[in-house]
Amino acid sequence: MLDASLVKEALKKSKVKSEQFKDLEYLRFTDDYKNIPRGTVIFQEFTIFGYPHIGRIFQLSTGLREQFTEPFWVEEKVDGYNLRIFYHKGEVYALTRSGLICAFSTDRVLDFIDKRFFEDNPDLVLCAEMAGPENPYVEESPPYVKEDVRLFVFDIMRKNESTFLPQREKLELIEKYSLPSVEVFGRFTVDQVEKIKDLLRKLDQECREGVVFKEDSERNKRVKYITRYANLNDIRITSLNIMGLPADYYTNRLLRLALFIEEEGLEKDDSLYTELGKAFLEGIFQACKLSREEGKVYRTFRCRFHSKENLLIFLEQIKHSSAHIQIIERGIRQEGNMYVLEFDKVFLNMTGLLGHVLRGGSVFD
Amino acid sequence: MLDASLVKEALKKSKVKSEQFKDLEYLRFTDDYKNIPRGTVIFQEFTIFGYPHIGRIFQLSTGLREQFTEPFWVEEKVDGYNLRIFYHKGEVYALTRSGLICAFSTDRVLDFIDKRFFEDNPDLVLCAEMAGPENPYVEESPPYVKEDVRLFVFDIMRKNESTFLPQREKLELIEKYSLPSVEVFGRFTVDQVEKIKDLLRKLDQECREGVVFKEDSERNKRVKYITRYANLNDIRITSLNIMGLPADYYTNRLLRLALFIEEEGLEKDDSLYTELGKAFLEGIFQACKLSREEGKVYRTFRCRFHSKENLLIFLEQIKHSSAHIQIIERGIRQEGNMYVLEFDKVFLNMTGLLGHVLRGGSVFD
Repeated sequence: MLDASLVKEALKKSKVKSEQFKDLEYLRFTDDYKNIPRGTVIFQEFTIFGYPHIGRIFQLSTGLREQFTEPFWVEEKVDGYNLRIFYHKGEVYALTRSGLICAFSTDRVLDFIDKRFFEDNPDLVLCAEMAGPENPYVEESPPYVKEDVRLFVFDIMRKNESTFLPQREKLELIEKYSLPSVEVFGRFTVDQVEKIKDLLRKLDQECREGVVFKEDSERNKRVKYITRYANLNDIRITSLNIMGLPADYYTNRLLRLALFIEEEGLEKDDSLYTELGKAFLEGIFQACKLSREEGKVYRTFRCRFHSKENLLIFLEQIKHSSAHIQIIERGIRQEGNMYVLEFDKVFLNMTGLLGHVLRGGSVFD
Repeated sequence: MLDASLVKEALKKSKVKSEQFKDLEYLRFTDDYKNIPRGTVIFQEFTIFGYPHIGRIFQLSTGLREQFTEPFWVEEKVDGYNLRIFYHKGEVYALTRSGLICAFSTDRVLDFIDKRFFEDNPDLVLCAEMAGPENPYVEESPPYVKEDVRLFVFDIMRKNESTFLPQREKLELIEKYSLPSVEVFGRFTVDQVEKIKDLLRKLDQECREGVVFKEDSERNKRVKYITRYANLNDIRITSLNIMGLPADYYTNRLLRLALFIEEEGLEKDDSLYTELGKAFLEGIFQACKLSREEGKVYRTFRCRFHSKENLLIFLEQIKHSSAHIQIIERGIRQEGNMYVLEFDKVFLNMTGLLGHVLRGGSVFD
C-alpha cells in the first residue's frame, strides 16, 4: 500500500485528483510523483499502481546487448490503448493509462475476459491493450482487427503491488482462463539478434507496431522497439492535426524510422521517400480541405456499447478529457443488442490556426 | 532615446547584457522587453533599435487583402543573416539580429558598402542581409551567390529611432551611393494578387527564399511570404541536426509548404512527396554515418577575413555563442590578401542522442 503521508503530500501539490465512476470514488495520480507513476489509483480497499514507462531502443544489434544480461521474452506490441482491468465487489472495471475508469472499456471488457478469472483471483489486475477500428481513443488499429475492438493481455499485476507476475505464471493464467493475449514470439538471447531482426522485418511487412522485450529475470526489465511501418503510420494518421501534437512527436519518429531502415538494411529508395512525404502532406491537405469546407478540422470516431448508461457516462467523460479537443456527438443508434455512438473530435489548435491563416491572418514565428 | 528607468528595470530582470567589441562598450537587449525589441543596443552616444519581428502570411490571396489597405512594395527576402550596419568615430560596425557586433561581418562590410554613405549620413543605420556559401552562421545561401558572401540592403533606420525611412527615400539613397540591395519587384495593390502569385512561382523555380511586402503608408506595415523551395530547403539543410532544432521548426514549414503548393496550384505528385521524404531522411542518414565514423555530428563552415585580428576575435565570439554547439577550429590559412577560417560546428544534442541510441541506449519518450 501507499504511504499515507506521501499521498497527502501529492494531494497538496495537486498531483492527485479525486474521481468518481457511478458510486465508486477514488483518487488518481495525474502525474508521476516521486516513485509513484502517473495513473496510480487509490480506492478505499486497495491501490492499483500505474503502468510503468517502458524505455525504447532505437537499435536491436547494440540495444539488446546493452539492455539485457539474461535471456528475454519477445512479445508483440499492439497498437491500441493501455488498460488495467480489475475486480471490485463483483464488478469488473477498466482503467486507462492515466487512471480513469473508462465507461467504454468497462462496458466491453467482459466480451473478452472470462469473469471466472477475477472470481478466482480477485486481487489480480490484467494489463491489456484494447485495439481496433472502433475504439474511441486512438486512430490506429492493428491490421488483423477488422471491426469493433479486441483485447490483448500482456501483463498481470497484483493490487497494491507495482511489479508484474513472472512471465511463466502469466502464461499459465492466460492459458487456464483462455485470456486473449498479445502474441508471444518466444524467449531469446542476445546472440539471436539476427533472428529478432528477421522477426521485426516480418512484423513490419505485416503492418504491425513492434515488440516489447522482457528480461526473464528478477528485475523483469523491459524495452520496446517499433517498426518502420508504425513510425510512418503515426505520421500518416496524425498529420491531419500536425499543429496540435507535441512538437517532438515527428522528429522522434523520423529518427526511429531512419534507424530501423538502416538496421534492417531496407532500401533507401524513392518509394520510401515518397511514402514519407505523402504521410506528412496528405493529412495537411485534408485538414485544409476540412477547414475550407466545414470550418473545422476533425475526425469521426465510432464505438459500440452494451449499456446505454455506460454510453452516456462515456460521452460525458470524453467531453471533458482535453482542452484541445472538442467532442461533437453525431448520433446514437441501436444495432442489434448494442448501442453505437458516433462522435467527432474537433482538433481545436489545428482548426484555429488553419482558419486564421486561410483567412489571411499573419503569424509571428 | 530610451528611457533610463526602463533600461535599469530591464537590467534588473537580466534582459540586458553588457558587451564589448575591441574598445567599444555597449549594452544589449537579449530578449524583447516591453516595447523594446531583442537586439536593441545602447552605446554611450546613441541607441540602435533591434530589427522588428515581421509577421508571416501563409496565403497570398486572402493574406494581402487582410493585411494591407494601401498599395505595397514587394521585395526579395534573401536567405542569409540580418545585420544592422552603423558608423561610429570613423569606423563602420555590423550588428547581428541579436545585437552583437560581429567581427566577421564588421571585417567584410566595407567590401560592399561605400564608406561615403556613412561619412555623409553618420546617423543612418543600414539593415541588410549577408548571404552566401561562405558565411559563418546559416547553412543556406541564395543560388546567385556562388562563392564567399554578398550584402543586400533592405531597410534604412536612423540611430535612436525604431522606424524605417520611407521606401522612396531608401531607394534614393541606395541609388545615390550604389548600395547593393535586395531586388525590388515593384509596387502592387491587392488587386494584383495573380501577378504576385506568378512572381512567387518564378522565385520558387529559381530556388529563392521569398518576399517581404511593405505597405506604402505611414504605418509601413510588413509581412513576409516564403516559397515551396525555401521550406523544403530548410528541412533538407537542418535534418542533419533534427533533434537539435526547436520542435515546431518542422511542423511550421510543413504547413507553409502545403499551403504554398495549394495556392500556387502546383502538382501534388510523387516527385513532391519524394523530395520531402528525402529532405527529412538523407540528413538523418548522414548524421548516423558521421556518428558511427567520427563520433560526432557536425558541419564545416568557412569564411574569409581581411584582418587576422578580426578572425581571432570572431573565433572567440562564435565559441561562446551557443551551449548546444561546440566550435572546433579546423585551420586558418592565407589566400591572397585574405585569411580563411575553417571550423566545425558540432551539434551537441544530436551527437549526444545519436551516440547514446547507436550504442544501444534506451530513451523514455
